[in-house]
Amino acid sequence: MRTDKILYGSAYYLEYMPYNRVDEDFKLMKKAGMNVIRIGESTWSTWEPKEGRFDFSLLDAMLDASEKYELDVIIGTPTYAIPDWLTVKYPDILADTHDGPGRYGHRQNMDITHPGYREHCEKIIRAMLEHIKGRKTIIGYQLDNETKSYDTCGERVQKRFAEYLKQKFGNLDALNLEFGLNYWSNRITDWDHLPDVRGTINASLNAEFRKFQRMLVTEFLWWQASIVREYATDDQFITQNFDYGWKDYSYGLQPEVNQYQAAKCMTVAGCDIYHLSQDKLTGAEIAMGGAIARSIKRDNYFVLETQSQGNITWLPYEGQLRLQAFSHFSSGANSVLYWNWHSIHNAIESYWKGVLSHDLTENATYLEACTIGQDLATHGNRLKNLKKNCKAAIILDNQSLVGLQEFSLETGTPNPGGFDYNDIFRMIFDACYRLNLECDVLHADDLMEHMLGSSLHPQSSVCSLLEKYELIITPAMYSAPAQLLYALKNYVAAGGHLLSTFKTGFSNEHLKIYHDKQPHLLHECFGMYYQQFTVPSNVMLSTGSNAEHFIELLIPDGCETWIGYDNKHYSKYAAATYHKYQKGDTCYLGCALNPQDMEALIERYCNAIGLILPEVQFPIIVKSGVNENNKQLTYYFNYSDEEVSFVPNVSGTNVLTGKNIQAGKEIYLKEWDFIIIEQN
Amino acid sequence: MRTDKILYGSAYYLEYMPYNRVDEDFKLMKKAGMNVIRIGESTWSTWEPKEGRFDFSLLDAMLDASEKYELDVIIGTPTYAIPDWLTVKYPDILADTHDGPGRYGHRQNMDITHPGYREHCEKIIRAMLEHIKGRKTIIGYQLDNETKSYDTCGERVQKRFAEYLKQKFGNLDALNLEFGLNYWSNRITDWDHLPDVRGTINASLNAEFRKFQRMLVTEFLWWQASIVREYATDDQFITQNFDYGWKDYSYGLQPEVNQYQAAKCMTVAGCDIYHLSQDKLTGAEIAMGGAIARSIKRDNYFVLETQSQGNITWLPYEGQLRLQAFSHFSSGANSVLYWNWHSIHNAIESYWKGVLSHDLTENATYLEACTIGQDLATHGNRLKNLKKNCKAAIILDNQSLVGLQEFSLETGTPNPGGFDYNDIFRMIFDACYRLNLECDVLHADDLMEHMLGSSLHPQSSVCSLLEKYELIITPAMYSAPAQLLYALKNYVAAGGHLLSTFKTGFSNEHLKIYHDKQPHLLHECFGMYYQQFTVPSNVMLSTGSNAEHFIELLIPDGCETWIGYDNKHYSKYAAATYHKYQKGDTCYLGCALNPQDMEALIERYCNAIGLILPEVQFPIIVKSGVNENNKQLTYYFNYSDEEVSFVPNVSGTNVLTGKNIQAGKEIYLKEWDFIIIEQN
Amino acid sequence: MRTDKILYGSAYYLEYMPYNRVDEDFKLMKKAGMNVIRIGESTWSTWEPKEGRFDFSLLDAMLDASEKYELDVIIGTPTYAIPDWLTVKYPDILADTHDGPGRYGHRQNMDITHPGYREHCEKIIRAMLEHIKGRKTIIGYQLDNETKSYDTCGERVQKRFAEYLKQKFGNLDALNLEFGLNYWSNRITDWDHLPDVRGTINASLNAEFRKFQRMLVTEFLWWQASIVREYATDDQFITQNFDYGWKDYSYGLQPEVNQYQAAKCMTVAGCDIYHLSQDKLTGAEIAMGGAIARSIKRDNYFVLETQSQGNITWLPYEGQLRLQAFSHFSSGANSVLYWNWHSIHNAIESYWKGVLSHDLTENATYLEACTIGQDLATHGNRLKNLKKNCKAAIILDNQSLVGLQEFSLETGTPNPGGFDYNDIFRMIFDACYRLNLECDVLHADDLMEHMLGSSLHPQSSVCSLLEKYELIITPAMYSAPAQLLYALKNYVAAGGHLLSTFKTGFSNEHLKIYHDKQPHLLHECFGMYYQQFTVPSNVMLSTGSNAEHFIELLIPDGCETWIGYDNKHYSKYAAATYHKYQKGDTCYLGCALNPQDMEALIERYCNAIGLILPEVQFPIIVKSGVNENNKQLTYYFNYSDEEVSFVPNVSGTNVLTGKNIQAGKEIYLKEWDFIIIEQN
Repeated sequence: MRTDKILYGSAYYLEYMPYNRVDEDFKLMKKAGMNVIRIGESTWSTWEPKEGRFDFSLLDAMLDASEKYELDVIIGTPTYAIPDWLTVKYPDILADTHDGPGRYGHRQNMDITHPGYREHCEKIIRAMLEHIKGRKTIIGYQLDNETKSYDTCGERVQKRFAEYLKQKFGNLDALNLEFGLNYWSNRITDWDHLPDVRGTINASLNAEFRKFQRMLVTEFLWWQASIVREYATDDQFITQNFDYGWKDYSYGLQPEVNQYQAAKCMTVAGCDIYHLSQDKLTGAEIAMGGAIARSIKRDNYFVLETQSQGNITWLPYEGQLRLQAFSHFSSGANSVLYWNWHSIHNAIESYWKGVLSHDLTENATYLEACTIGQDLATHGNRLKNLKKNCKAAIILDNQSLVGLQEFSLETGTPNPGGFDYNDIFRMIFDACYRLNLECDVLHADDLMEHMLGSSLHPQSSVCSLLEKYELIITPAMYSAPAQLLYALKNYVAAGGHLLSTFKTGFSNEHLKIYHDKQPHLLHECFGMYYQQFTVPSNVMLSTGSNAEHFIELLIPDGCETWIGYDNKHYSKYAAATYHKYQKGDTCYLGCALNPQDMEALIERYCNAIGLILPEVQFPIIVKSGVNENNKQLTYYFNYSDEEVSFVPNVSGTNVLTGKNIQAGKEIYLKEWDFIIIEQN
Repeated sequence: MRTDKILYGSAYYLEYMPYNRVDEDFKLMKKAGMNVIRIGESTWSTWEPKEGRFDFSLLDAMLDASEKYELDVIIGTPTYAIPDWLTVKYPDILADTHDGPGRYGHRQNMDITHPGYREHCEKIIRAMLEHIKGRKTIIGYQLDNETKSYDTCGERVQKRFAEYLKQKFGNLDALNLEFGLNYWSNRITDWDHLPDVRGTINASLNAEFRKFQRMLVTEFLWWQASIVREYATDDQFITQNFDYGWKDYSYGLQPEVNQYQAAKCMTVAGCDIYHLSQDKLTGAEIAMGGAIARSIKRDNYFVLETQSQGNITWLPYEGQLRLQAFSHFSSGANSVLYWNWHSIHNAIESYWKGVLSHDLTENATYLEACTIGQDLATHGNRLKNLKKNCKAAIILDNQSLVGLQEFSLETGTPNPGGFDYNDIFRMIFDACYRLNLECDVLHADDLMEHMLGSSLHPQSSVCSLLEKYELIITPAMYSAPAQLLYALKNYVAAGGHLLSTFKTGFSNEHLKIYHDKQPHLLHECFGMYYQQFTVPSNVMLSTGSNAEHFIELLIPDGCETWIGYDNKHYSKYAAATYHKYQKGDTCYLGCALNPQDMEALIERYCNAIGLILPEVQFPIIVKSGVNENNKQLTYYFNYSDEEVSFVPNVSGTNVLTGKNIQAGKEIYLKEWDFIIIEQN
Repeated sequence: MRTDKILYGSAYYLEYMPYNRVDEDFKLMKKAGMNVIRIGESTWSTWEPKEGRFDFSLLDAMLDASEKYELDVIIGTPTYAIPDWLTVKYPDILADTHDGPGRYGHRQNMDITHPGYREHCEKIIRAMLEHIKGRKTIIGYQLDNETKSYDTCGERVQKRFAEYLKQKFGNLDALNLEFGLNYWSNRITDWDHLPDVRGTINASLNAEFRKFQRMLVTEFLWWQASIVREYATDDQFITQNFDYGWKDYSYGLQPEVNQYQAAKCMTVAGCDIYHLSQDKLTGAEIAMGGAIARSIKRDNYFVLETQSQGNITWLPYEGQLRLQAFSHFSSGANSVLYWNWHSIHNAIESYWKGVLSHDLTENATYLEACTIGQDLATHGNRLKNLKKNCKAAIILDNQSLVGLQEFSLETGTPNPGGFDYNDIFRMIFDACYRLNLECDVLHADDLMEHMLGSSLHPQSSVCSLLEKYELIITPAMYSAPAQLLYALKNYVAAGGHLLSTFKTGFSNEHLKIYHDKQPHLLHECFGMYYQQFTVPSNVMLSTGSNAEHFIELLIPDGCETWIGYDNKHYSKYAAATYHKYQKGDTCYLGCALNPQDMEALIERYCNAIGLILPEVQFPIIVKSGVNENNKQLTYYFNYSDEEVSFVPNVSGTNVLTGKNIQAGKEIYLKEWDFIIIEQN
């Protein structure tokens, strides 16, 4: 979705304020150059304090003021935190999870399949939509917020799951065989006997249930979208605030939502990106989060939440707030909205601070936000709707992520703390990021839907989405349908370049491990196979680094060995290989690498395939795309606490200053500073 | 309460002995110079083996023997561990807690509000009191033991809590606003809807419930006291065995009891103090525990429990048992009672050893105890009822402790493992201790009750309790009613000296963060304010140390900067400040300090305000007071494993040897040794 | 039990295969020289897919193929994992444990006392036994698998426990006194009041319940044996797959089973031994597991499960699979069976890999297994039924293990993570192992049953089992009946040599600590006693090492001090002592030792008692016994990654090559290699 302007603003909750200061706040926003607020998503109990008694006075106050101060409004359906009376009415409304049913108080703990919840969701959504009909400042709707299944797995949900399995497999023998349920006498002997999945030790069953839970999320969002669409005008968008796999900050693929499927009901993808700060700010999460958000609808996206002051450890250094905002834009974001405007005076997020501190007056962070607003007001039109043109793409897949949760790399058993799917994704992604090799993300589901000729001859599967990329990367694509593996093989055969890591192609889509030569279907393409793997103990690679986490013992079968094992027990095996296959070639990585070795391998492979990388590397980050003037826009960021310099290889205009930039002439960037060049 | 003599002895449980050896035991006690036993507090099932059938034979045996051996007796009500038949009678008698209801077996797990429990408590207490009426050796009563609410939060308790809130706030709007319950739709829309507090994410609600739980403890002890008082004679005291915040040993303020309020029904405060030993013995817990115990009734106190051999890691080195006992007396304790006399042969505390080991004969620890008994017999009268005359006082507050549990310093979220309120208290207290700056403790509630003129003009609040001190210290007084902040301001204005740390005055008494300039009400007094704070990462202080845990970025506004940040991002901010305000002055510490820096800051401030510190410092500890002869008594302790020497600046008498001490003449103390000087 | 041949093979589950490949598999087995499969123990749901409908087609397929390929078969009763329909029929069939009732899915989670479970166990067992009657390849039966009580402690079990206590103690006063239940009012006042043991803080009660749970296991196995025996022919054996205390691998005594008692119903003991691999392979677990397995029936034993590829971290280096197999034989094992044949394609153990990887073809591990099979085919007859002739024996005891769980060495409280009983056993065992002092294990129960003259005069108790050993070792024999202590005393008096560690003899069989001089009954024998102990903090031993974990302060009373404390506080105490007592002598170790000091102490004591140790030490391991030819067989293993050499002191034949070995002539062993010498 194209936007008229870059949206800049924050979430706003008049409901949480110690007193009504909407006028004062919006004046401060306006002064900062902000042009949008995002409201509503967690205020059900204020808007419907008793069942059926609606009170939209605070909402009206915000909308009135938005008109006065000309702020656009994104309004959320207020359904992700339920009012107390709803819990009293339906004592079973809270999701029954792996840890049993929860207690009222927290957000995001209801059963999203509960009929009573759905009925009252619809009522409050319709009441709100009726109430705000015709309000001019509303530009779009957010469905719920960071929706998940909240691990709902009570009796009703499990019955639906049994139905789903029955539909899918037809008969029990097929299910028992595919999932290997004979193991430990887990055979399901009657559809009515399907045991509580919370007890299962069968990874296939568990993974299928988790897929089913993701489908519940999709179904819930589609359902909300269908209601909202009844009221929305044509120029109003529908979005969601998708979040990411979380390791104290936005880290990788979200395990609990199939964002690609869920977003089909939406106009534009939204997301929230949180990251480390101060000395630990690298911009990698901004790029990673952006790549995933772009992939959801293969389009520009909104950053609906990101940090201003953030949590206690994240208070940005001077310059970092600016650096972050423009980093988002350079990834194709059409908005930066902070969470949230003010710091809250009560309850659990009081120290997840907003643009304003608790004293509700201007402060250092606010003042820096003002400079961003000014820049956007002046130059935003040259930045918006940036089209990325990445040469490489990384394939991500929810079920592969689950696969490595069920069978962790280092133990082979469920181990939430280990080196996981997102770690492997980040091992690859971050090395590319530091090398300034910008990457798209492709959702495996998106690929599957783009298969041609697949139903008749799986071997001849071709996926059109792969073709535009010079380099396709599959980090630990553990759960791989045969069709997808064939498509990759055919991509390579036709001249494509494929970089795969360990575990790619190891199991099918139900986590059933393939029982033939590994990597399944692709071993010829890689020119090697393997039968054994282990966790290395004092194993040195030929790079001079110690192997860590996991190694496959690759048996060369035509390939070139790029990295070997400098260890007497494994000297006959390869750790990373290169192989020409028909018109293309492949690089296979059989072990985890440290950042330096990972970068070296990617550089070497890029070199081999003629993919030219920028000369500068991290901490100087280069990101680019084409703007609405059809000009190449190149951002150079200094992600370090020291001044750096570089020599641009293009001439153009410094977007923010209007000055000319001459190719070949050194440019200096102060700590945490950046420059945007619009090529002539 | 004044005592005739220093009490020296131990807890005694004939009930736990493998055979009846009361005569043998009391003879050994007598030989050791012991003069008191403490009995009864956990023996309900022995004294009432069937409902209504009382058997006090073992109690009689102990009382008979106490008369024979002239041992005083402190008798406890046996209510803190319930008999099995009571659990059978009332299956719901065990407290329903945050972790659900417990199982029978442990002590201190019943619901202290349960009517059946209360009824049977009263029966056993009255039966016992009737039975022992007229017994001459009984000098006092202990109510229950280490009483808490045991986190009782079942339905009945939560109903009472709703009643309490209704009384306090009158209407729901007031409650919702003050607690910020609109956040995450937590608004309470009906008094009958008050959700189970165990689910809440609202810190104000949770903190209020924890205050309510402390009130249950107070109410329970007052109720027991009212029964005991019907039977007690005028010369018999009533006490309780209060304990402390615990981190493997007595560490700081007890979070679960408002000891100041609870002790109003008692004659004298009692406590149990446990501490590290061997190389880790510093005496700090003895001084800290003593300061808190003195504050409860602003008077002398009893040490009702402390370690002799203690747990496995605490077996004292030679000399330490003596050092410990006299350290207690130097803090104003009128007793040292060991827990317990013998090491127990079964059950969970078998390795929490007594004066006697399991072999029940004399051993090294017993023999050292004998020397203490002999010294007390000869010189105890010059040591008892010591009146302390500290120049400094530290304000402690239960709700501020809770505040930093709800919002931990380093994460802003609940984090029981972090750098907490008691750590901050100990950061300050221990530095004072090592500097030999003896401190009193003042309970915030005690201060609030001593406010003058407060009801009409909060701004002119004055607290008489502050006046007697040259220096008032507020470690992280997070939860601060405006009245108390005004009192501190007026104390300074009138010439007082105030040392406050970070977080002081940040929220009101309901953990609602103040929404104006910080530190609330006191920023003028400190000559600075702040808007931002963070967890330091590689931030050096001007002291040369790395900042740790938490820093506030103080903006000087008239103050002197005493400690700054040696870091380019924070160079404009202060870390510790000094400011003259009207007739007094203040020192504000905006960051955590290591022990050396903390000591240096306190020394500097003492210097500035003319408070003279002793020349000796830890490991030589000086503690003093005035004895009943109205003479200054000064203890010098060697808390180290090496011999030390010092030069006293007073002349007097070595209390234990009777020898003359001459000012200016060097005195040598062997490892773990001490000397007591009664000034001429 | 003597065997005709050494059994070599693996577990096999046609039920788990992705397709029927029994023919292909057995052919591969045969090629590898394997001669046995072990089947059936977890396949109930395949064999009885609906209640009462039996389907043994896969079993038949395996048995048919076993006849075709001449593989022996050990068949297990399939009762350790229950089918789903059984859980539906009996919703209470899953054990109600300390963590509440489980959920269906896992193995080994049913209540083994449940009448419905027992009824259906009997049905499936009888159906299976009827079905296979007359099958010639079946050589033996395995009862269930790794049976435990699975912590069943629901109401029915606790009622039975109350009955058991009533039988044992007769009246409540006796029970209350022996268990010290007066403590914390835990007195049991009515047999019907016995509180849920899950809440108890009384270690004696808890330990007795755990003993009772072990008795349930014994009873269950005896019951299964009685059924199987109705069908078994005289030449078919009955066994069980006993496992070990587990710390990520087989570590020590199994806490939850009294294997000595349970095995009385069996023909031969079986076990599963798992261990670290690669650089961490030491062979100690193979020796330790073997010693325990030999002790169960004081006879040869079967290794029914051990690793081939094993889990991800265990993939063996070249040579290790051979080394491991022959290490088992050198301990007296008459079999090596791998778990399992193939790597499984679904569910939780997919990465616990078999002989074959998931690709189900030959691989490096398989090829090494082939060499073992060939060696056994040729030379197995000279290796089987090896009779060990150890000079030393270590006494192990389930209840002492529990004692140190209830009262951990370092805290005196329950602490599952600490330095525990098995750590102490391994401290001793592993030192002996490294010194090549081969040890037997003696079960305390076995000793108690061999007491002579005990009933009349406990003091004159003599145990015939002790007599054959030159050296008896008691690691932390915490829970020691007086009779056993007398037997040890009399063993020493008669000329025996006793090495005891700390905590030996500290409590009686009910974990009631003895209330007289420690070590109880044995202090004269040791020539010392002690009253105090602690966790050392900076305490140096006279060996120059720091003391760790725990020290007793031994007071010499006639003994020689072999290790003292190099610490001013403990200089008068001993840490290890030596004492001649009548015709024998003793060595007592009062502290934990590091491996070097432990070896030195054992060497010194062996020296003192004239027990000659081999000259070679770890990594060269020597193990020996007498084979069926009545010849001394000596194995030399190289447990290192480097070549080593040694000089044998006997002449004989290299069993595998047939070459002559000459005493005094150096022999070289490559990394992980070994040699077997049959003495001339």
